[in-house]
Amino acid sequence: MNALEQLIDHFCMLPGIGKKSASRLAYHILKQDADYAHRFAESLQTLHDNIHPCPVCGAFTDTDPCSICSDASRDSACICVVEQPQDVATLAGMGSYRGLFHVLGGVIAPLEGVGPDQLRIAALVKRVHEQQVKEVILATNPTLEGDTTALYIQKVLADFPVEISRLASGLPVGGDLEYTDKLTLMRSFNGRVSLSQ
Amino acid sequence: MNALEQLIDHFCMLPGIGKKSASRLAYHILKQDADYAHRFAESLQTLHDNIHPCPVCGAFTDTDPCSICSDASRDSACICVVEQPQDVATLAGMGSYRGLFHVLGGVIAPLEGVGPDQLRIAALVKRVHEQQVKEVILATNPTLEGDTTALYIQKVLADFPVEISRLASGLPVGGDLEYTDKLTLMRSFNGRVSLSQ
Repeated sequence: MNALEQLIDHFCMLPGIGKKSASRLAYHILKQDADYAHRFAESLQTLHDNIHPCPVCGAFTDTDPCSICSDASRDSACICVVEQPQDVATLAGMGSYRGLFHVLGGVIAPLEGVGPDQLRIAALVKRVHEQQVKEVILATNPTLEGDTTALYIQKVLADFPVEISRLASGLPVGGDLEYTDKLTLMRSFNGRVSLSQ
Repeated sequence: MNALEQLIDHFCMLPGIGKKSASRLAYHILKQDADYAHRFAESLQTLHDNIHPCPVCGAFTDTDPCSICSDASRDSACICVVEQPQDVATLAGMGSYRGLFHVLGGVIAPLEGVGPDQLRIAALVKRVHEQQVKEVILATNPTLEGDTTALYIQKVLADFPVEISRLASGLPVGGDLEYTDKLTLMRSFNGRVSLSQ
Protein backbone atom coordinates (compact mmCIF):
# COMPACT_ATOMS: atom_id res chain seq x y z
CA MET A 1 0.00 0.00 0.00
CA ASN A 2 1.57 3.30 -1.06
CA ALA A 3 1.36 6.65 0.75
CA LEU A 4 -1.64 7.74 -1.33
CA GLU A 5 -3.66 4.62 -0.49
CA GLN A 6 -2.64 4.95 3.15
CA LEU A 7 -3.77 8.58 3.23
CA ILE A 8 -7.11 7.63 1.67
CA ASP A 9 -7.52 4.92 4.32
CA HIS A 10 -6.80 7.41 7.10
CA PHE A 11 -9.31 9.91 5.73
CA CYS A 12 -11.83 7.06 5.50
CA MET A 13 -11.65 6.52 9.25
CA LEU A 14 -12.95 10.04 9.93
CA PRO A 15 -16.65 10.39 10.71
CA GLY A 16 -18.84 11.22 7.70
CA ILE A 17 -16.10 10.61 5.14
CA GLY A 18 -16.59 7.66 2.82
CA LYS A 19 -14.29 6.03 0.32
CA LYS A 20 -15.09 8.50 -2.49
CA SER A 21 -14.72 11.64 -0.40
CA ALA A 22 -11.49 10.30 1.11
CA SER A 23 -10.09 9.71 -2.36
CA ARG A 24 -11.13 13.20 -3.48
CA LEU A 25 -9.45 14.80 -0.45
CA ALA A 26 -6.23 12.83 -0.87
CA TYR A 27 -5.97 13.69 -4.57
CA HIS A 28 -6.68 17.32 -3.72
CA ILE A 29 -3.76 17.38 -1.28
CA LEU A 30 -1.53 15.65 -3.83
CA LYS A 31 -2.25 18.44 -6.30
CA GLN A 32 -1.43 21.17 -3.80
CA ASP A 33 2.02 22.33 -2.84
CA ALA A 34 3.96 19.75 -0.76
CA ASP A 35 4.39 22.49 1.85
CA TYR A 36 0.67 22.35 2.71
CA ALA A 37 0.83 18.57 3.24
CA HIS A 38 3.90 19.00 5.45
CA ARG A 39 2.28 21.67 7.64
CA PHE A 40 -0.91 19.56 7.82
CA ALA A 41 1.19 16.55 8.84
CA GLU A 42 3.01 18.56 11.49
CA SER A 43 -0.20 19.77 13.12
CA LEU A 44 -1.42 16.16 13.24
CA GLN A 45 1.92 14.91 14.55
CA THR A 46 2.08 17.40 17.40
CA LEU A 47 -1.65 17.35 18.18
CA HIS A 48 -1.64 14.87 21.06
CA ASP A 49 1.62 16.21 22.51
CA ASN A 50 0.45 19.81 22.60
CA ILE A 51 -3.24 19.49 23.36
CA HIS A 52 -4.58 18.02 26.60
CA PRO A 53 -7.68 18.48 28.75
CA CYS A 54 -7.48 21.49 31.07
CA PRO A 55 -7.10 20.15 34.64
CA VAL A 56 -9.70 22.66 35.86
CA CYS A 57 -12.50 22.75 33.28
CA GLY A 58 -11.70 19.77 31.06
CA ALA A 59 -11.67 21.66 27.75
CA PHE A 60 -8.86 20.89 25.30
CA THR A 61 -5.98 23.35 25.65
CA ASP A 62 -2.26 23.79 25.09
CA THR A 63 -1.73 25.79 28.28
CA ASP A 64 -2.16 24.74 31.89
CA PRO A 65 -4.79 25.77 32.99
CA CYS A 66 -6.56 26.80 29.79
CA SER A 67 -6.83 30.38 28.54
CA ILE A 68 -10.43 30.68 29.75
CA CYS A 69 -9.76 29.35 33.28
CA SER A 70 -6.73 31.62 33.65
CA ASP A 71 -8.51 34.71 32.28
CA ALA A 72 -8.91 36.97 35.33
CA SER A 73 -11.41 39.18 33.51
CA ARG A 74 -13.96 36.35 33.40
CA ASP A 75 -16.58 35.93 36.12
CA SER A 76 -15.41 32.97 38.23
CA ALA A 77 -18.71 32.93 40.15
CA CYS A 78 -20.51 31.49 37.12
CA ILE A 79 -19.88 28.03 35.67
CA CYS A 80 -21.44 26.76 32.46
CA VAL A 81 -21.63 22.94 32.35
CA VAL A 82 -21.28 21.31 28.92
CA GLU A 83 -21.06 17.76 27.58
CA GLN A 84 -18.04 17.89 25.29
CA PRO A 85 -14.81 19.90 25.07
CA GLN A 86 -15.83 21.32 21.69
CA ASP A 87 -18.98 22.81 23.28
CA VAL A 88 -16.70 25.21 25.18
CA ALA A 89 -15.38 26.63 21.90
CA THR A 90 -18.97 26.99 20.59
CA LEU A 91 -20.26 28.84 23.65
CA ALA A 92 -17.10 30.91 24.14
CA GLY A 93 -17.37 31.88 20.46
CA MET A 94 -20.82 33.36 21.21
CA GLY A 95 -18.96 36.17 22.96
CA SER A 96 -21.67 37.29 25.35
CA TYR A 97 -20.92 34.78 28.14
CA ARG A 98 -18.11 35.91 30.42
CA GLY A 99 -18.07 33.10 33.01
CA LEU A 100 -16.15 29.84 33.24
CA PHE A 101 -16.88 26.36 31.87
CA HIS A 102 -16.95 22.79 33.08
CA VAL A 103 -16.79 19.83 30.68
CA LEU A 104 -18.55 16.64 31.82
CA GLY A 105 -16.96 14.47 29.13
CA GLY A 106 -20.30 12.94 28.12
CA VAL A 107 -23.80 12.33 29.44
CA ILE A 108 -25.42 9.76 31.69
CA ALA A 109 -26.33 6.89 29.37
CA PRO A 110 -26.95 3.61 31.26
CA LEU A 111 -27.37 1.62 28.03
CA GLU A 112 -23.85 2.59 27.02
CA GLY A 113 -22.52 1.96 30.51
CA VAL A 114 -21.95 5.62 31.30
CA GLY A 115 -23.01 6.50 34.85
CA PRO A 116 -22.43 9.68 36.88
CA ASP A 117 -19.09 8.30 38.11
CA GLN A 118 -17.68 8.23 34.58
CA LEU A 119 -18.40 11.94 34.18
CA ARG A 120 -16.61 14.89 35.77
CA ILE A 121 -19.51 15.57 38.14
CA ALA A 122 -17.52 15.13 41.36
CA ALA A 123 -15.00 17.69 40.05
CA LEU A 124 -17.89 20.08 39.39
CA VAL A 125 -19.23 19.66 42.93
CA LYS A 126 -15.72 20.29 44.25
CA ARG A 127 -15.42 23.51 42.23
CA VAL A 128 -18.84 24.71 43.38
CA HIS A 129 -17.91 23.85 46.96
CA GLU A 130 -14.44 25.41 47.01
CA GLN A 131 -14.87 28.44 44.78
CA GLN A 132 -17.42 31.17 45.40
CA VAL A 133 -19.73 29.92 42.64
CA LYS A 134 -23.07 31.74 42.51
CA GLU A 135 -24.60 30.32 39.31
CA VAL A 136 -24.35 27.03 37.46
CA ILE A 137 -25.75 27.04 33.90
CA LEU A 138 -26.59 23.53 32.67
CA ALA A 139 -25.84 23.59 28.94
CA THR A 140 -26.06 19.88 28.14
CA ASN A 141 -27.86 19.12 24.84
CA PRO A 142 -31.69 19.15 24.87
CA THR A 143 -31.80 15.37 24.36
CA LEU A 144 -33.08 12.61 26.63
CA GLU A 145 -29.59 11.94 27.98
CA GLY A 146 -28.70 15.63 28.23
CA ASP A 147 -31.89 16.39 30.16
CA THR A 148 -31.33 13.41 32.46
CA THR A 149 -27.79 14.52 33.18
CA ALA A 150 -28.94 18.11 33.85
CA LEU A 151 -31.59 16.80 36.25
CA TYR A 152 -29.03 14.65 38.05
CA ILE A 153 -26.61 17.56 38.49
CA GLN A 154 -29.47 19.76 39.66
CA LYS A 155 -30.20 17.24 42.44
CA VAL A 156 -26.54 16.82 43.37
CA LEU A 157 -26.14 20.59 43.72
CA ALA A 158 -29.49 21.07 45.52
CA ASP A 159 -27.88 21.59 48.92
CA PHE A 160 -25.41 24.21 47.74
CA PRO A 161 -26.31 27.93 47.88
CA VAL A 162 -26.06 28.22 44.13
CA GLU A 163 -28.52 29.27 41.46
CA ILE A 164 -29.01 26.62 38.81
CA SER A 165 -30.33 27.38 35.34
CA ARG A 166 -30.81 25.45 32.11
CA LEU A 167 -30.46 26.73 28.53
CA ALA A 168 -33.83 27.64 27.02
CA SER A 169 -35.30 25.05 24.68
CA GLY A 170 -37.74 26.05 21.95
CA LEU A 171 -38.04 27.14 18.35
CA PRO A 172 -34.74 27.93 16.64
CA VAL A 173 -34.44 31.42 15.13
CA GLY A 174 -35.62 31.31 11.52
CA GLY A 175 -37.59 28.13 12.26
CA ASP A 176 -41.11 27.38 11.12
CA LEU A 177 -43.97 26.19 13.34
CA GLU A 178 -45.16 23.88 10.58
CA TYR A 179 -41.90 21.95 10.41
CA THR A 180 -41.14 21.85 14.12
CA ASP A 181 -41.47 18.52 15.92
CA LYS A 182 -44.14 18.17 18.61
CA LEU A 183 -41.71 17.90 21.51
CA THR A 184 -39.91 21.13 20.60
CA LEU A 185 -43.25 22.84 20.07
CA MET A 186 -44.46 21.64 23.47
CA ARG A 187 -41.32 22.88 25.18
CA SER A 188 -41.46 26.19 23.42
CA PHE A 189 -45.12 26.49 24.48
CA ASN A 190 -44.52 25.56 28.10
CA GLY A 191 -41.50 27.80 28.30
CA ARG A 192 -43.29 30.79 26.77
CA VAL A 193 -41.97 34.17 27.87
CA SER A 194 -44.26 36.88 29.22
CA LEU A 195 -44.18 40.08 27.18
CA SER A 196 -46.53 42.10 29.43
CA GLN A 197 -44.92 44.88 31.47
CA MET B 1 -2.62 29.41 17.29
CA ASN B 2 -2.26 25.99 18.90
CA ALA B 3 -1.98 22.62 17.13
CA LEU B 4 -5.74 22.03 17.35
CA GLU B 5 -6.62 25.34 15.72
CA GLN B 6 -3.94 24.75 13.09
CA LEU B 7 -5.35 21.31 12.33
CA ILE B 8 -8.88 22.75 12.00
CA ASP B 9 -7.49 25.37 9.60
CA HIS B 10 -5.81 22.71 7.49
CA PHE B 11 -8.98 20.62 7.31
CA CYS B 12 -10.86 23.79 6.33
CA MET B 13 -8.71 24.17 3.22
CA LEU B 14 -9.95 20.83 1.85
CA PRO B 15 -12.76 20.93 -0.72
CA GLY B 16 -16.26 20.52 0.73
CA ILE B 17 -15.14 20.85 4.35
CA GLY B 18 -16.35 23.93 6.20
CA LYS B 19 -15.44 25.34 9.58
CA LYS B 20 -17.87 23.10 11.50
CA SER B 21 -16.91 19.86 9.77
CA ALA B 22 -13.23 20.70 10.16
CA SER B 23 -13.71 21.23 13.87
CA ARG B 24 -15.63 17.96 14.20
CA LEU B 25 -12.88 16.03 12.38
CA ALA B 26 -10.09 17.58 14.46
CA TYR B 27 -11.87 16.83 17.75
CA HIS B 28 -12.51 13.29 16.52
CA ILE B 29 -8.80 12.76 15.90
CA LEU B 30 -7.96 14.27 19.29
CA LYS B 31 -10.20 11.69 20.97
CA GLN B 32 -8.59 8.78 19.11
CA ASP B 33 -5.32 7.16 20.00
CA ALA B 34 -2.27 9.36 19.29
CA ASP B 35 -0.96 6.50 17.15
CA TYR B 36 -3.67 7.08 14.52
CA ALA B 37 -2.75 10.78 14.30
CA HIS B 38 0.92 9.88 13.94
CA ARG B 39 0.30 7.37 11.14
CA PHE B 40 -2.04 9.86 9.44
CA ALA B 41 0.67 12.54 9.73
CA GLU B 42 3.30 10.21 8.30
CA SER B 43 1.23 9.38 5.22
CA LEU B 44 0.73 13.12 4.65
CA GLN B 45 4.40 13.87 5.27
CA THR B 46 5.65 11.27 2.79
CA LEU B 47 2.88 11.79 0.21
CA HIS B 48 4.67 14.16 -2.14
CA ASP B 49 8.02 12.36 -1.80
CA ASN B 50 6.59 8.93 -2.62
CA ILE B 51 3.88 9.73 -5.12
CA HIS B 52 4.56 11.29 -8.52
CA PRO B 53 2.95 11.19 -11.97
CA CYS B 54 3.90 8.12 -13.99
CA PRO B 55 6.22 9.29 -16.83
CA VAL B 56 4.29 7.13 -19.31
CA CYS B 57 0.59 7.48 -18.52
CA GLY B 58 0.54 10.40 -16.05
CA ALA B 59 -1.37 8.61 -13.27
CA PHE B 60 -0.12 9.05 -9.70
CA THR B 61 2.19 6.23 -8.65
CA ASP B 62 5.02 5.31 -6.29
CA THR B 63 6.84 3.17 -8.87
CA ASP B 64 8.43 4.15 -12.17
CA PRO B 65 6.60 3.46 -14.50
CA CYS B 66 3.34 2.76 -12.66
CA SER B 67 2.03 -0.71 -11.88
CA ILE B 68 -0.47 -0.54 -14.75
CA CYS B 69 2.06 0.58 -17.40
CA SER B 70 4.54 -2.09 -16.26
CA ASP B 71 1.92 -4.88 -16.14
CA ALA B 72 2.84 -7.15 -19.06
CA SER B 73 -0.51 -8.95 -18.87
CA ARG B 74 -2.37 -5.80 -19.92
CA ASP B 75 -3.16 -5.12 -23.57
CA SER B 76 -0.71 -2.41 -24.66
CA ALA B 77 -2.56 -1.97 -27.97
CA CYS B 78 -5.46 -0.22 -26.23
CA ILE B 79 -5.18 3.17 -24.52
CA CYS B 80 -7.98 4.73 -22.49
CA VAL B 81 -7.69 8.54 -22.33
CA VAL B 82 -8.95 10.21 -19.11
CA GLU B 83 -8.96 13.74 -17.70
CA GLN B 84 -7.56 13.26 -14.21
CA PRO B 85 -5.17 10.83 -12.47
CA GLN B 86 -7.96 9.67 -10.14
CA ASP B 87 -10.02 8.56 -13.16
CA VAL B 88 -7.42 5.83 -13.75
CA ALA B 89 -8.14 4.34 -10.31
CA THR B 90 -11.89 4.51 -11.00
CA LEU B 91 -11.69 2.76 -14.37
CA ALA B 92 -9.02 0.26 -13.28
CA GLY B 93 -11.23 -0.56 -10.29
CA MET B 94 -13.99 -1.57 -12.74
CA GLY B 95 -11.87 -4.66 -13.41
CA SER B 96 -13.12 -5.48 -16.91
CA TYR B 97 -10.76 -3.18 -18.82
CA ARG B 98 -7.36 -4.73 -19.43
CA GLY B 99 -5.65 -2.04 -21.54
CA LEU B 100 -3.48 0.94 -20.62
CA PHE B 101 -4.32 4.52 -19.66
CA HIS B 102 -3.32 8.05 -20.59
CA VAL B 103 -4.00 11.01 -18.32
CA LEU B 104 -4.53 14.36 -20.05
CA GLY B 105 -4.26 16.38 -16.84
CA GLY B 106 -7.41 18.39 -17.57
CA VAL B 107 -9.66 19.43 -20.45
CA ILE B 108 -9.57 22.12 -23.10
CA ALA B 109 -11.15 25.17 -21.44
CA PRO B 110 -10.29 28.42 -23.22
CA LEU B 111 -12.03 30.56 -20.58
CA GLU B 112 -9.65 29.15 -17.98
CA GLY B 113 -6.67 29.51 -20.30
CA VAL B 114 -6.27 25.77 -20.84
CA GLY B 115 -5.49 24.95 -24.46
CA PRO B 116 -4.39 21.65 -26.06
CA ASP B 117 -0.74 22.54 -25.38
CA GLN B 118 -1.29 22.52 -21.62
CA LEU B 119 -2.61 18.94 -21.78
CA ARG B 120 -0.65 15.75 -22.38
CA ILE B 121 -2.03 15.39 -25.92
CA ALA B 122 1.38 15.46 -27.68
CA ALA B 123 2.52 12.63 -25.38
CA LEU B 124 -0.59 10.66 -26.37
CA VAL B 125 0.11 11.17 -30.08
CA LYS B 126 3.70 10.04 -29.48
CA ARG B 127 2.51 6.87 -27.72
CA VAL B 128 0.02 6.10 -30.50
CA HIS B 129 2.75 6.73 -33.07
CA GLU B 130 5.53 4.71 -31.43
CA GLN B 131 3.62 1.83 -29.85
CA GLN B 132 1.41 -0.55 -31.81
CA VAL B 133 -1.78 1.08 -30.55
CA LYS B 134 -4.94 -0.27 -32.17
CA GLU B 135 -7.68 1.43 -30.14
CA VAL B 136 -7.98 4.72 -28.26
CA ILE B 137 -10.96 4.99 -25.91
CA LEU B 138 -11.84 8.60 -25.13
CA ALA B 139 -13.11 8.56 -21.53
CA THR B 140 -13.22 12.29 -20.79
CA ASN B 141 -16.30 13.36 -18.81
CA PRO B 142 -19.56 13.84 -20.77
CA THR B 143 -19.42 17.62 -20.22
CA LEU B 144 -19.03 20.46 -22.71
CA GLU B 145 -15.27 20.62 -22.07
CA GLY B 146 -14.87 16.83 -22.00
CA ASP B 147 -16.71 16.45 -25.30
CA THR B 148 -14.69 19.26 -26.90
CA THR B 149 -11.45 17.66 -25.78
CA ALA B 150 -12.55 14.26 -27.09
CA LEU B 151 -13.45 15.84 -30.44
CA TYR B 152 -10.06 17.58 -30.59
CA ILE B 153 -8.15 14.36 -29.88
CA GLN B 154 -10.29 12.53 -32.44
CA LYS B 155 -9.19 15.06 -35.08
CA VAL B 156 -5.54 14.96 -34.04
CA LEU B 157 -5.51 11.15 -34.31
CA ALA B 158 -7.51 11.08 -37.55
CA ASP B 159 -4.47 10.25 -39.69
CA PHE B 160 -3.32 7.34 -37.56
CA PRO B 161 -4.48 3.77 -38.29
CA VAL B 162 -6.22 3.55 -34.94
CA GLU B 163 -9.80 2.93 -33.91
CA ILE B 164 -11.21 5.72 -31.75
CA SER B 165 -14.20 5.21 -29.47
CA ARG B 166 -15.99 7.27 -26.84
CA LEU B 167 -17.65 6.05 -23.61
CA ALA B 168 -21.43 5.65 -24.06
CA SER B 169 -23.52 8.46 -22.66
CA GLY B 170 -27.10 7.83 -21.51
CA LEU B 171 -29.30 6.88 -18.61
CA PRO B 172 -27.42 5.75 -15.51
CA VAL B 173 -28.37 2.29 -14.21
CA GLY B 174 -31.18 2.63 -11.67
CA GLY B 175 -32.08 6.03 -13.14
CA ASP B 176 -35.58 7.25 -13.90
CA LEU B 177 -36.76 8.72 -17.21
CA GLU B 178 -38.86 11.25 -15.31
CA TYR B 179 -35.92 12.73 -13.45
CA THR B 180 -33.39 12.63 -16.28
CA ASP B 181 -32.35 15.93 -17.87
CA LYS B 182 -33.23 16.56 -21.51
CA LEU B 183 -29.67 16.42 -22.79
CA THR B 184 -28.98 13.02 -21.24
CA LEU B 185 -32.32 11.77 -22.53
CA MET B 186 -31.50 13.02 -26.02
CA ARG B 187 -28.09 11.36 -26.00
CA SER B 188 -29.52 8.13 -24.68
CA PHE B 189 -32.17 8.27 -27.42
CA ASN B 190 -29.72 9.02 -30.23
CA GLY B 191 -27.31 6.39 -28.98
CA ARG B 192 -30.00 3.70 -28.65
CA VAL B 193 -28.72 0.16 -29.08
CA SER B 194 -30.34 -2.28 -31.51
CA LEU B 195 -31.69 -5.41 -29.85
CA SER B 196 -32.77 -7.17 -33.04
CA GLN B 197 -30.68 -10.13 -34.13
